[in-house]
Amino acid sequence: MLELVKQRKITDEESAEVEKELTAMREEMIELANAVKMAKLPVIITIDGWSAAGKGSQIKHLIKYMDPRFFDVESIRTPTPEEKRMPWLHRFWKRLPKKGEFLILDGSWYRDTAKALVSGEIDKDTYKQRIGDINVFERQLTDDGCLLIKLFLHITGGEQKKRMDKLAANPYTAWRVDGQDFADNKAYDKFYKRYDKTLERTNTAYAPWHIIPANSRTASRLEILRVVTGSVKAALDAKAKGEPFTETAEFPVNDVRPEKFKLVKTKKLAEIDMDKSLTDKEYGEKLKKYQDRLFELQNICYQRKIPVVIAYEGWDAGGKGGNIKRVAAALDPRGYEVKPIAAPEPSELARHYLWRFWNRLEKDGHFTIFDRTWYGRVMVEVLEKLTPPERTEMAYQEINEFEHMLTEWGAVVVKFWINIDKDEQLRRFTERQNTPSKQWKITDEDWRNREKWDDYEKAVDRMIELTSTEFALWTVIEGNDKKYARIKALKTICRAIEENIK
Amino acid sequence: MLELVKQRKITDEESAEVEKELTAMREEMIELANAVKMAKLPVIITIDGWSAAGKGSQIKHLIKYMDPRFFDVESIRTPTPEEKRMPWLHRFWKRLPKKGEFLILDGSWYRDTAKALVSGEIDKDTYKQRIGDINVFERQLTDDGCLLIKLFLHITGGEQKKRMDKLAANPYTAWRVDGQDFADNKAYDKFYKRYDKTLERTNTAYAPWHIIPANSRTASRLEILRVVTGSVKAALDAKAKGEPFTETAEFPVNDVRPEKFKLVKTKKLAEIDMDKSLTDKEYGEKLKKYQDRLFELQNICYQRKIPVVIAYEGWDAGGKGGNIKRVAAALDPRGYEVKPIAAPEPSELARHYLWRFWNRLEKDGHFTIFDRTWYGRVMVEVLEKLTPPERTEMAYQEINEFEHMLTEWGAVVVKFWINIDKDEQLRRFTERQNTPSKQWKITDEDWRNREKWDDYEKAVDRMIELTSTEFALWTVIEGNDKKYARIKALKTICRAIEENIK
Repeated sequence: MLELVKQRKITDEESAEVEKELTAMREEMIELANAVKMAKLPVIITIDGWSAAGKGSQIKHLIKYMDPRFFDVESIRTPTPEEKRMPWLHRFWKRLPKKGEFLILDGSWYRDTAKALVSGEIDKDTYKQRIGDINVFERQLTDDGCLLIKLFLHITGGEQKKRMDKLAANPYTAWRVDGQDFADNKAYDKFYKRYDKTLERTNTAYAPWHIIPANSRTASRLEILRVVTGSVKAALDAKAKGEPFTETAEFPVNDVRPEKFKLVKTKKLAEIDMDKSLTDKEYGEKLKKYQDRLFELQNICYQRKIPVVIAYEGWDAGGKGGNIKRVAAALDPRGYEVKPIAAPEPSELARHYLWRFWNRLEKDGHFTIFDRTWYGRVMVEVLEKLTPPERTEMAYQEINEFEHMLTEWGAVVVKFWINIDKDEQLRRFTERQNTPSKQWKITDEDWRNREKWDDYEKAVDRMIELTSTEFALWTVIEGNDKKYARIKALKTICRAIEENIK
Repeated sequence: MLELVKQRKITDEESAEVEKELTAMREEMIELANAVKMAKLPVIITIDGWSAAGKGSQIKHLIKYMDPRFFDVESIRTPTPEEKRMPWLHRFWKRLPKKGEFLILDGSWYRDTAKALVSGEIDKDTYKQRIGDINVFERQLTDDGCLLIKLFLHITGGEQKKRMDKLAANPYTAWRVDGQDFADNKAYDKFYKRYDKTLERTNTAYAPWHIIPANSRTASRLEILRVVTGSVKAALDAKAKGEPFTETAEFPVNDVRPEKFKLVKTKKLAEIDMDKSLTDKEYGEKLKKYQDRLFELQNICYQRKIPVVIAYEGWDAGGKGGNIKRVAAALDPRGYEVKPIAAPEPSELARHYLWRFWNRLEKDGHFTIFDRTWYGRVMVEVLEKLTPPERTEMAYQEINEFEHMLTEWGAVVVKFWINIDKDEQLRRFTERQNTPSKQWKITDEDWRNREKWDDYEKAVDRMIELTSTEFALWTVIEGNDKKYARIKALKTICRAIEENIK
């Protein structure tokens, strides 16, 4: 793609005209930022490109008159040691803007692909995997209504050398270039090829590239404002009409389709044998056995830096709390966290629904245990109609992709549906109601949910069917007998970790 | 204090009795954790002490049957490079538990004092400063109703050596001890003296120490459960009666009084000359001059890693937004963030009111610009009676302490009150109401606040009087003329930074 880009010079005659145009567009940008705020449109602008292409000063001009309360500019550098212990896209998920706000990235996830490959930070397989991850990530963002504008500032090798020499010659700016920069300039062709391939592979219909010829600072300033104001206006128009928005691609796009994950065949809830149980003696023995084993396995995970993500779902009063307690009791408490998931807070509602789960992950070597999960998206959000049907319908694929990224990161992913039958639930509800110390556990909402049992069951069957991937299997736990349920959970976690460390 | 501590052995005869007691107390702990949840009591338990004193396994036993959804265990190690770029207590503020939850720290802020001093990580002045900071921090937490239980696990040097040898001899645990640990054991006496002094200086009436003789694991397990259940029960009782709670100190306490910061004499708002203004020409020239200067100063701050914290307060429609915009426009956008402060979210309300401000600080070398601030505590929270009067009354001191810690960290702190008169506000409100693109800026609440102008004015006068410290001065900005206000803000920030870098 880069070869199609023509550098542009602003002639002296054009110069006055261009200045006028710049001022007009910057003023338009102020209005647009207000409109973005009111329309609650989240906007991400990524600015990548060659070293010394002027990303910093371009950003400064872009935001010149925008209200600084509604945008955030972040510099993306080499990941810190802490960031390296998380999934590689984690540091970008974490930074997602609220609806109505701008996030402007100086360098982006692309920093961790092309540049990281050429500099030897990652190998080719990792590079390829990341390209795939990026296409997924960008689709998830744009499907959620985020406007993503990707800019690549392109300068020629000669221009780059000239700029670096200039920076090095000035004592105030000399610290901004070092030997590595000059070495990179010598390897310009190598970078060129890699950048070009990366651009091509990630030039999708939903997130096309804008390549900005940047040899001339004024010309690129103009082009950036044109692209940004144009895209924002078009996205606002589409949003006002309630239509989905796609930017017009300047280059032929790479037709990336969502990966079809192989699904494992599963039983319906109605087919589960609910009579399984354990005697107190069996329970006592097995509890000790699997808790001891889990503790050993936690040590191995800690030393090998393997993350473990455990997702608990199940009927109200299914016994999630007590089950989690037995798992947690086996673990060194410094190495796990339990994340109870309730209704989202305003700052969470203002972002992609997966944001709050990305945000709650613990670093590698640690266990993250979710008490209720991202599957709320395809249960309560469907039944209570909290989200448009077309968005929840996409969630099965999005969730599979999310869990796939967790396993790419090296995580052991275990998902439990704790199943009880309708009579058992009634028995437990009544007991809670009649026991003063347990009354806080039962609410009117629980009774209301119970009335929708059949609809929930359908939703759960469908969820399990569509998200039982080979890398993140569901385990349905027969929960009428709490003892049986706890042992099965412990055993399943042990087996999953053993499978991973073999 | 350590010399007063007697190690205890559990004899064989006692052993059965002790086991019974342990089980009973652990069961009591489950009930207490439920009660803590319902009473919305935040609880922090810090576990410090000698290496190999068994902190990890003691924590494991303490929480054995507690509901893992309501506590969080964190290991405190050497601060990471990122943590080092924040105020040193930042990493503890960040972790504060919600009301009703437990935070259990394996190592705490004490790690960064005694141990850090002996190991040469910090010098003596820093150590002393940190002891002072700790006394402030612990008072702020306990004054806010947090139950803070500080445990120090004490073992003798011989016992420590024995345990390290044992760890080193077992291939599964050998990785947990290294040469440094054995060297520290040789320096036991040196550590002893420093630990002892640290304990004494931080043994306050509001946060007394519990020293746990830990040569015997069972004896210390028993003692920890005794202390924790005892303190939790007492705190719950006090809370139920609406009384303030103080733990009983086992050792003579260090009577630490809040530091009286010297206040600078200030004018009342009514004494401000509101007629100051600038011509367009003056404004244009000065804007360029101070914006250019600020940009230079930002570069210096970035290179020297000086943090800058700017707090904006002022009347509704005072022009904060436009003022901030002119400051921001001068800055490299990668080096600052504007933090708009609205009503707190549920997760923020569930913690100390300063938590959300600690959490929003940017790292050193960067600017954090607050659009409204922690001063809401002594304005809106007082006028709307959102907080009990005795707590807001403490806020002046707490805020001075907070800002003092920021300056200790090296921050330049600038605080603006943008002042307009009542007529000017009316004019601006009316204009907003009549301009469609500005209507989102004016709400019914603004009109309601306006009715309380006189009360607000009193609150602001008092706030400025009581929080004008030498290290964090207020600048009242004459805001009837927006141009004058913007230049004064820019100039004040430049002067404050220049003063700091001299």
